[in-house]
Amino acid sequence: MQGLTERELRAWRTSFQMLQVLRARLGQQLQADSGLSNAEYSVLVLLSEAPDRRLRAYELGHAAGWEKSRTHHQLTRMCKRGLVTRERSGSRGVYAALTEKGLTAIKDAAPGHAQEVRRLFVDRLTPEELDQFAAIAAKILDNLQTQQPPQ
Amino acid sequence: MQGLTERELRAWRTSFQMLQVLRARLGQQLQADSGLSNAEYSVLVLLSEAPDRRLRAYELGHAAGWEKSRTHHQLTRMCKRGLVTRERSGSRGVYAALTEKGLTAIKDAAPGHAQEVRRLFVDRLTPEELDQFAAIAAKILDNLQTQQPPQ
Repeated sequence: MQGLTERELRAWRTSFQMLQVLRARLGQQLQADSGLSNAEYSVLVLLSEAPDRRLRAYELGHAAGWEKSRTHHQLTRMCKRGLVTRERSGSRGVYAALTEKGLTAIKDAAPGHAQEVRRLFVDRLTPEELDQFAAIAAKILDNLQTQQPPQ
Repeated sequence: MQGLTERELRAWRTSFQMLQVLRARLGQQLQADSGLSNAEYSVLVLLSEAPDRRLRAYELGHAAGWEKSRTHHQLTRMCKRGLVTRERSGSRGVYAALTEKGLTAIKDAAPGHAQEVRRLFVDRLTPEELDQFAAIAAKILDNLQTQQPPQ
């Protein structure tokens, strides 16, 4: 496996810098308006859309790209804040479940977050560009998720 | 300003999840192989390519999308690790400069990071897809950087 060509490196740098700056900006809006971090918001969205509003910790970490220890620490912090609870379910391992407080938090935060996503991302692109970008993102994500993260 | 349509929300979710998982995976490789976080790596790259290997803290934060306090804390941690030094330059504010140790760290980390970027991102796409993705990212980044982040 070789390094990157100049052209690949430029394309990568632009893509990654965009990702970093966009993520930082969205995180600032979330924190200021709702007191939530990007990571907390992601967990709340995943749980709020899961059956019975609960997911195995393993699945949650897989969806977020986190190692086991990162998932554990994230859930511990959110349990302390009352946003989720942890439930042990016999041989099937640990589940995380959304609390009423967590559900309220995501419902309160979602409209402001959606506006910021529209302002910084969706409205900057034509519908065709948005579809292209999402299709390319889906290819990369599929590959990432067929591999196990390191434990 | 309105919320997002179902189609926009799906495109956004896929794009952001890819960004999050890719960032987490790259951060895991960096941490395991070089003991650097994504944020530290970004700062080292920016400084190593700047004239005289130094940048105003303000410019550094602007490039990374960080608020003033976030930039300050990041540089404090990196000063303690000996990767950068902080220099005050009269009316022009605070500069961050790369140390020899920081230069060695980025030179040691770069090849493994480039391989991971190739494996997880560049090699998943055709050259045309890579160019499309980077062009769309550049549009979004330009808009983000014409706005001041909150202080």
